Amino acid sequence: MNNLDLFDQIKIKKSFLCLGLDTDIDKIPNHLKNESDPVFSFNKKLIDKLNTIIVAVKINTAFYERAGSMGWISLEKTIDYINLKYPEIFTIADAKRGDIGNTSGNYAKAFFETLNFDSITVSPYMGKDSIEPFLKYKNKHTILLSLTSNEGSSDFQFLKCDNKMVFEEVILKSMKWKGSENLMYVVGATKSDYLKKIRKLIPKSFLLIPGVGAQGGDLKQTFINGSNDNVGILINSSRSIIYAGSDSEFLNKSYIVAKSYQVEMQKLIKSKYDKL
Amino acid sequence: MNNLDLFDQIKIKKSFLCLGLDTDIDKIPNHLKNESDPVFSFNKKLIDKLNTIIVAVKINTAFYERAGSMGWISLEKTIDYINLKYPEIFTIADAKRGDIGNTSGNYAKAFFETLNFDSITVSPYMGKDSIEPFLKYKNKHTILLSLTSNEGSSDFQFLKCDNKMVFEEVILKSMKWKGSENLMYVVGATKSDYLKKIRKLIPKSFLLIPGVGAQGGDLKQTFINGSNDNVGILINSSRSIIYAGSDSEFLNKSYIVAKSYQVEMQKLIKSKYDKL
Repeated sequence: MNNLDLFDQIKIKKSFLCLGLDTDIDKIPNHLKNESDPVFSFNKKLIDKLNTIIVAVKINTAFYERAGSMGWISLEKTIDYINLKYPEIFTIADAKRGDIGNTSGNYAKAFFETLNFDSITVSPYMGKDSIEPFLKYKNKHTILLSLTSNEGSSDFQFLKCDNKMVFEEVILKSMKWKGSENLMYVVGATKSDYLKKIRKLIPKSFLLIPGVGAQGGDLKQTFINGSNDNVGILINSSRSIIYAGSDSEFLNKSYIVAKSYQVEMQKLIKSKYDKL
Repeated sequence: MNNLDLFDQIKIKKSFLCLGLDTDIDKIPNHLKNESDPVFSFNKKLIDKLNTIIVAVKINTAFYERAGSMGWISLEKTIDYINLKYPEIFTIADAKRGDIGNTSGNYAKAFFETLNFDSITVSPYMGKDSIEPFLKYKNKHTILLSLTSNEGSSDFQFLKCDNKMVFEEVILKSMKWKGSENLMYVVGATKSDYLKKIRKLIPKSFLLIPGVGAQGGDLKQTFINGSNDNVGILINSSRSIIYAGSDSEFLNKSYIVAKSYQVEMQKLIKSKYDKL
């Protein structure tokens, strides 16, 4: 799935909402806990309910690894289900991987070949040769951490080196890497003021924007500062959608929250793009 | 397992060698490929053969994830086997994880509780709150990337900010984090000249040093520049040991390479520490 397919989906669904499956076994409704794979059941029901109003699904590997190989099986079943039933949904392995070239090559095989995700999040600390093995894959996307939504982003991402901050260096250098046309970037919604600056550096790239909802980012401001000619942003929401309810009515509650995001997105899209 | 237990093992075995299990199914001897779990069989045989001359085992998660949940099962069997049969071996999940606090908390559970590793490698890009969830665990160690052995380390780790390089900022800031007594650091052997500088910043911390062997780092120089009063370094070697042979004699060939490292380590230890 490439950028243009994703833009088509945004136009069809009037949504740039990404559903974050940070599925915590301790937080899913009790009535699902007797099923053979409660985590997969929870994910499947959410995807079936929300697929018409979301364009992407982001699977956070930590929540699956916590359960060991059983968790990895739940992860496999989830991505296989999406790829089979909803191939139009853009899939993101939120894995924050990155290592020396030989090792990153194996991570790329794991997530792009074995699991067949459309994209993966990666961490830039180890530089060019830790990311290029991911960029070799056509129609697969590598989503580079640049400016994250958490408090600790100030520790290193905002260090100033020769009048540029580290997160800007990450973006500028990454644009020169082989296969950089397959890059997207993580930019936290809690750093909305910096989105304008980042958008000028990379006018065409898709941005994955976490931090709306539980982390406090503002959707409208994020859209104003972050969108480009092709919308160009995916807004992720995890906890505020998937844990909207905790009983047998959880799906309806999740739908209400997700739909409220989608309605706001539809308005924002309409306000900016007459032609869409 | 804590720092002192590790130092005891170094003294007993006269070795600070870490065996890196970057086990690639394509590279293991053909005669093992008919076994029910060739990757685990390969690992088990290597550990049984080398356990008296190594003090640590590092399992690189990428090579296991490449095979999906089956790979994760091989990983589980390997760590369980070591914990059961060789509890004196210090175990490292070479996973390079790191994410917002809530997610890092789940990675910590995955590797410290579910899998029961003694330590995990983590990436500093997201700062303090992405690492502190790992540091909460007593007698578990969090090995922070500071200066890595690969070419791309020059992209961001060597950026100069206010007279300090980013990798120095990582070390200096991390020392103030809650639970910092549980930190160790990754410093590549290919950056041997910087080891002296880093050792002055953190005289007491253990350093995990990859890059000797296939990546070209020099063992003696690394020891001279990196060791402290308690030895304080683990030298990892992966490919040069585990793929020393490719036929039914592979174990003897691996042993010869690992033993040659251990013999050199014993000489280095003897030359510096009369009392050991």
